[in-house]
Amino acid sequence: MRYELYYWPQIQGRGEFVRLALEEAGADYVDVARGKGGMAKLEKLMRRKSSEHPPFAPPFLKAGSLLIGQTANILSFLGARHGLVPKSEASRLWVSQLQLTMADLVVEAHDTHHPIAASLYYENQKAEAARAASCFIKERMPKFLGYFEDVLTANGKAGFLGGRALSYADLSLFQVVEGLRYAFPRAMKGLEKKLPRTLALHDRVAARPKIAAYLSSSRRIPFNQHGIFRHYAELDVS
Amino acid sequence: MRYELYYWPQIQGRGEFVRLALEEAGADYVDVARGKGGMAKLEKLMRRKSSEHPPFAPPFLKAGSLLIGQTANILSFLGARHGLVPKSEASRLWVSQLQLTMADLVVEAHDTHHPIAASLYYENQKAEAARAASCFIKERMPKFLGYFEDVLTANGKAGFLGGRALSYADLSLFQVVEGLRYAFPRAMKGLEKKLPRTLALHDRVAARPKIAAYLSSSRRIPFNQHGIFRHYAELDVS
Repeated sequence: MRYELYYWPQIQGRGEFVRLALEEAGADYVDVARGKGGMAKLEKLMRRKSSEHPPFAPPFLKAGSLLIGQTANILSFLGARHGLVPKSEASRLWVSQLQLTMADLVVEAHDTHHPIAASLYYENQKAEAARAASCFIKERMPKFLGYFEDVLTANGKAGFLGGRALSYADLSLFQVVEGLRYAFPRAMKGLEKKLPRTLALHDRVAARPKIAAYLSSSRRIPFNQHGIFRHYAELDVS
Repeated sequence: MRYELYYWPQIQGRGEFVRLALEEAGADYVDVARGKGGMAKLEKLMRRKSSEHPPFAPPFLKAGSLLIGQTANILSFLGARHGLVPKSEASRLWVSQLQLTMADLVVEAHDTHHPIAASLYYENQKAEAARAASCFIKERMPKFLGYFEDVLTANGKAGFLGGRALSYADLSLFQVVEGLRYAFPRAMKGLEKKLPRTLALHDRVAARPKIAAYLSSSRRIPFNQHGIFRHYAELDVS
């Protein structure tokens, strides 16, 4: 069975968390909206009348007869299918909890450049974005990243977020670090000395053969100013 | 086994979605932080060094040796244990997806009064809140609620969000309607004529014996100006 991933074709965005899991799993998948006629297919599945379980928004994944939406939900599904999460109930709940906490961070990172409304241009909320980004960088980034650092520290030097084995949450933390480095290079530089375990995990994920191959392929969309993580120098206060 | 729910004792907030599931399940639980010394117990479990799986934030649930954080994750666990979600994998993924979509709505509803930072007073972000609330009311509330209305419509007159049986997502949609009516009574009044299935579901949930008993008990904390859903008349544009 070939998975069909549906996500906006020009950005990493939330779809990237799913792409990383599919790549690490070595799963057969197609990134539908990046192919010919793909956006029409994406829109068709979102139509309420042509879909039994219509998703509210991308990303969503077609897996045989299943159509699954919401990033953390997709990852929970893929993790169980592809050994990207330990088998015990306790571990699965824990990894899901970590993923959802990263999802909260991702919303806040997005909202630094769109604090008023996602539908308005950045240019129409620049002053508000400057205030929001300043609070995010000073309070929220250290709080979130410090939390994951502490979890990793508790799991030992060769450990992962979920314990002794790699899980999809580790791939996601890699992506969070990538995104924050792109969006806020100055702020991240100041923080990184407090995040040795997180950065070591980031590097271990990047060096995994399938992830390394993916990152150097054209399947990896470069960061840009349309995604969730955006670089506006004026927001990158340290 | 008695569940221990840990959440801020003065608000409904995200804890309320868990409370509603526990109440409908008839589960034996204690709302720890509302009891004597409860806040100290909550804080202790959040300390990274005294907890194997420290939660980033409340709510979290202690279930025997499990400590589970993130609202949607807790509900997924409780739903499976207490028959508040159908048994098939497809249904469980779908109900989880709906819950996560409501979680997105809840973040946006919160951010109408705190668009810049949760750590700043409303009074320090009133102008920004007015802009954010206006966009939320005009664009996002109709989009989210219209989505759930369409899902309910597809499931038929006696249907629920997950299909033919009640699930925790229905309890959550009840709470979303309650919260939005409290926060934005004028805006909701204008929208409600387009939401007959949603309101009918709301009323069916409210009339369920265990939910009705809960709502009229002192266990139900009244809405107030400290929670996620807050009523500021100046934000309630229609």
